[in-house]
Amino acid sequence: MTELRKEPITRMWVVVATDHPKGPSDYLSFKPPYRIQESGGPCPFCPGQEKMTPPETFSIPRKGGGWSVRVVPNKSPFFHIEGDFDRRPEGMYDLMEAIGAHEIVIEAPEHHQSLATLEAVQIESILLAYRDRLRDLERDQRFLQFLIIKNYPGVFNRHPHSHLMALPVIPKRIEEEIRGTLDYFQRKERCIYCDIIKEEISSGKRVVLETPHFLVFAPFASRFPFETWIVPKAHASDFHSIDGERIADLSVAIQSLFRRFHQLISDPPYSLTFHTSPVQNRFHRPEYHWHIEARLRIGLREGFEWGTGFFVNPTPPEQAAAYLRNGG
Amino acid sequence: MTELRKEPITRMWVVVATDHPKGPSDYLSFKPPYRIQESGGPCPFCPGQEKMTPPETFSIPRKGGGWSVRVVPNKSPFFHIEGDFDRRPEGMYDLMEAIGAHEIVIEAPEHHQSLATLEAVQIESILLAYRDRLRDLERDQRFLQFLIIKNYPGVFNRHPHSHLMALPVIPKRIEEEIRGTLDYFQRKERCIYCDIIKEEISSGKRVVLETPHFLVFAPFASRFPFETWIVPKAHASDFHSIDGERIADLSVAIQSLFRRFHQLISDPPYSLTFHTSPVQNRFHRPEYHWHIEARLRIGLREGFEWGTGFFVNPTPPEQAAAYLRNGG
Repeated sequence: MTELRKEPITRMWVVVATDHPKGPSDYLSFKPPYRIQESGGPCPFCPGQEKMTPPETFSIPRKGGGWSVRVVPNKSPFFHIEGDFDRRPEGMYDLMEAIGAHEIVIEAPEHHQSLATLEAVQIESILLAYRDRLRDLERDQRFLQFLIIKNYPGVFNRHPHSHLMALPVIPKRIEEEIRGTLDYFQRKERCIYCDIIKEEISSGKRVVLETPHFLVFAPFASRFPFETWIVPKAHASDFHSIDGERIADLSVAIQSLFRRFHQLISDPPYSLTFHTSPVQNRFHRPEYHWHIEARLRIGLREGFEWGTGFFVNPTPPEQAAAYLRNGG
Repeated sequence: MTELRKEPITRMWVVVATDHPKGPSDYLSFKPPYRIQESGGPCPFCPGQEKMTPPETFSIPRKGGGWSVRVVPNKSPFFHIEGDFDRRPEGMYDLMEAIGAHEIVIEAPEHHQSLATLEAVQIESILLAYRDRLRDLERDQRFLQFLIIKNYPGVFNRHPHSHLMALPVIPKRIEEEIRGTLDYFQRKERCIYCDIIKEEISSGKRVVLETPHFLVFAPFASRFPFETWIVPKAHASDFHSIDGERIADLSVAIQSLFRRFHQLISDPPYSLTFHTSPVQNRFHRPEYHWHIEARLRIGLREGFEWGTGFFVNPTPPEQAAAYLRNGG
């Protein structure tokens, strides 16, 4: 099982795995130089191995048979769906059970694919799967925040997949963004993300590409080289309220961005997260502006990034955007 | 040169290098599997190559000749010492020149060493160098925050060294810790770190070791496997106010902790940061409690850690502490 522990000074929740804890020997092969830790056995995400995963919560059939996208509960979830929160103190500390949902979105039947090589229509199916699962999970009143995270390549399995989670707490970064958005709104009566979109389109120098509904750009204070945000041009607080036209448009934007990364930096590893408003009436924030943040996992500045929140970026966003604009 | 750019939503400062920006080709060899990028030429930090570095700002002679610890300005500093802040807007954004200090502490003459293999008396010299440099830099009224960061192994050079910086802004994590410390103080009229020390000594289950003046423990909501904090048992806000007796005691605590890491996880890569109060009257916080945070760079959860502030730790701190207590 897993529990949520509250860091008492900054009041951030951390998930701690308590049932199959990893000891020192588990980390011996898990040090740099990092390599993918594929098991060598049959891939549980490949067609024909469906029985290796729990029953699916959603799937999209492929024309001609089989499936195009499958969503299954994670076998080792960070958050478990059943049980009570059991909020309790431990000495001066606070903790609760990590109740939530943690599903795996299997993004394609093919084992070797990435967002740079998938067809736009396949990316559209992945986005539809995200949306459908979030709309379903929203009915569970215990969940306050959705998180969609993709790591490429995956750590334990190369088969293209992403993590979809429903959390009973609001993660720190989302909370900070909401606080910043509300502060700005109070001062200006405008959305800060909407203003950033206007600023970026007007200056143009950090824009990577623009579609009818989305702006893709390198943010002014990029923390990481080639950090890129994909933001809907019209204000919207929730990813899962997106309509079919915008999903199709977004899939083209994502495909185009990751093809540029692929060409420019030779198939780099990346992470991508969806930032969307908390759900449930009490926590939902219509002032928030949902968006996607993408980071290439290149460079190695861990010592500077963690612990102090101090970021050094050796590639100015104006140059990153110029490379990406031209290298399409 | 480098500039400090303010992220407009969460208002965090980011250092962006603008003079020798890295382009896509610079990252081709800087992807996982990561390897140390040593140049192959003579090491500028080794004895006999002193002319390869700028003139030293501090050094401790070694008995019998030569030096034991040297401090030199960084040749490619994140913060530069000369110039004006030139605070200015750019469209809706805010930026300024990255004025500050960035020095390299060369921790020993020997090229292959780590905190696990150095003698305690050598670690004492390193700590003396930190203290002396901070006391000198404090006289410059432009600097508000000191940062000491060590990465092992170094990214570009294996020679044992650490980074010592004086910043004109307060990094996000320190600001959050100060906010949490003041909130707690308002409620309880006690220091939260002092309370944590009492709690940890009383429960004992997360304690790694205790010296006359320091407690070494795995924090309750550890974000990373084997995350460990070293905290002075008596309240003190500034590392650089430390006396000689406590420096000697701290060097023994550091050596003992890193020897345990070394034995338990076979010479793991690690990062270590000093968290200390901002300086200058207007920003100094006597309520803050300085400490050291150490993280092993094992595991690979970047996608989860960045972007959302959502941490998952597969090793409960109680177990990490038990391993470290016994594996000494």
